[in-house]
Amino acid sequence: MAVSDLTIGFDADDTLWHNEVIFEQTHERYRALLSRYHDAATVDRTLFVTEMRNLELYGYGIKGFTLSSIETAIELTRGRISAEEIRQLIGLGQEMLAHPVNLLEDAAETLAALAPSYRLVLITKGDLRDQERKLAKSGLAGHFRHVEIVSEKDAGAYGRLFRRHAIEPARFLMVGNSLKSDILPVLELGGAGVHIPYHLTWAAERAEPPPAHPGRLFTVQYLRELPDVVRSWAGK
Amino acid sequence: MAVSDLTIGFDADDTLWHNEVIFEQTHERYRALLSRYHDAATVDRTLFVTEMRNLELYGYGIKGFTLSSIETAIELTRGRISAEEIRQLIGLGQEMLAHPVNLLEDAAETLAALAPSYRLVLITKGDLRDQERKLAKSGLAGHFRHVEIVSEKDAGAYGRLFRRHAIEPARFLMVGNSLKSDILPVLELGGAGVHIPYHLTWAAERAEPPPAHPGRLFTVQYLRELPDVVRSWAGK
Repeated sequence: MAVSDLTIGFDADDTLWHNEVIFEQTHERYRALLSRYHDAATVDRTLFVTEMRNLELYGYGIKGFTLSSIETAIELTRGRISAEEIRQLIGLGQEMLAHPVNLLEDAAETLAALAPSYRLVLITKGDLRDQERKLAKSGLAGHFRHVEIVSEKDAGAYGRLFRRHAIEPARFLMVGNSLKSDILPVLELGGAGVHIPYHLTWAAERAEPPPAHPGRLFTVQYLRELPDVVRSWAGK
Repeated sequence: MAVSDLTIGFDADDTLWHNEVIFEQTHERYRALLSRYHDAATVDRTLFVTEMRNLELYGYGIKGFTLSSIETAIELTRGRISAEEIRQLIGLGQEMLAHPVNLLEDAAETLAALAPSYRLVLITKGDLRDQERKLAKSGLAGHFRHVEIVSEKDAGAYGRLFRRHAIEPARFLMVGNSLKSDILPVLELGGAGVHIPYHLTWAAERAEPPPAHPGRLFTVQYLRELPDVVRSWAGK
């Protein structure tokens, strides 16, 4: 089967490989470290406020998260946290960066099934080097025609990608776990989306589900359902 | 004059806008903070060792620098540094990220003179969001056909850019202050380079000057000399 002019965009974190569970493990150790000062809910809430305040400066990714976690720990302990404990926080961040990449079930098989027939593009946000490293570790890089690591996944960013690769929005389907970053901006531009919810969603990625878009918005539970959805979309 | 098929690549930090001076100001305040523990040379040397050890994990940029500076401060004070002092280090990093962009002399005029006749591409490495923010603040974005923010500027990275934008190496000229990142890999691939030394060079960017490459390697002192060099190269 010849490659069609249809393009399928894939999110990476929590769409092709596990990511939020690594943050969740770190959050647990972070709460434990601060448990003699504050309850878990206060720790979580304060860290999130710091992350949102710093997002414009730091952008997404583990390094900014680590810096925000140190800043929050100093604030929550009123400076009583020890240098040794801060060293542990730096270590937690380094462990996250060095973490193995665990693919979601059927990720490799699904990409292998689609790559011969469609132009596959990876579209992810976060730290440049961290995302490149995860892609290299994933063993999935060979399936993608292009890899785009962007600082934000909004309608402006997708629009720039469409122009750069001469993609017609109506012939573009985005696959991802985040309604906010993967689905809503693509629908807005006239593209299609396949939402594959992940069991954990970072608070900053939460969004209201959009109204029904028949033929343009699909929801599936597993990646292995994707080829059927793609065929139904492509045949429309 | 019509746009030719010649492409000129520009480095950004310390080629179009000042960067290393901001790090140097931060280094001075860092040395002052640690001066009751160690002399400046020990502080500088230890910080550099930490940065190099973490480079593979963190990549380039201010967030990784800030994390390495905290790690080094804890090590150099054997944990005696206070949380308040670590908070100051986080603040130094945030000040760097929010720093105004100061263009090098003649940067805007030189790009404006070249943009009508050549395809200009910005090629820079570092934090994605930080480089995007600096480009936006610089007012120079409109001169560039493409902007490429990469995690490393080596022959592999330039080769990928050449393929991506269908650039013939012999018709590519790279302008930058770093022999290691801007000049040597481009010469290796058959392109040309204009080296414009900056008065400060980060130790990790130092490299031996290459042998003479007549017609392919130029050195100038100021950006305003660039149009003459480009004409001489283009007419070769």
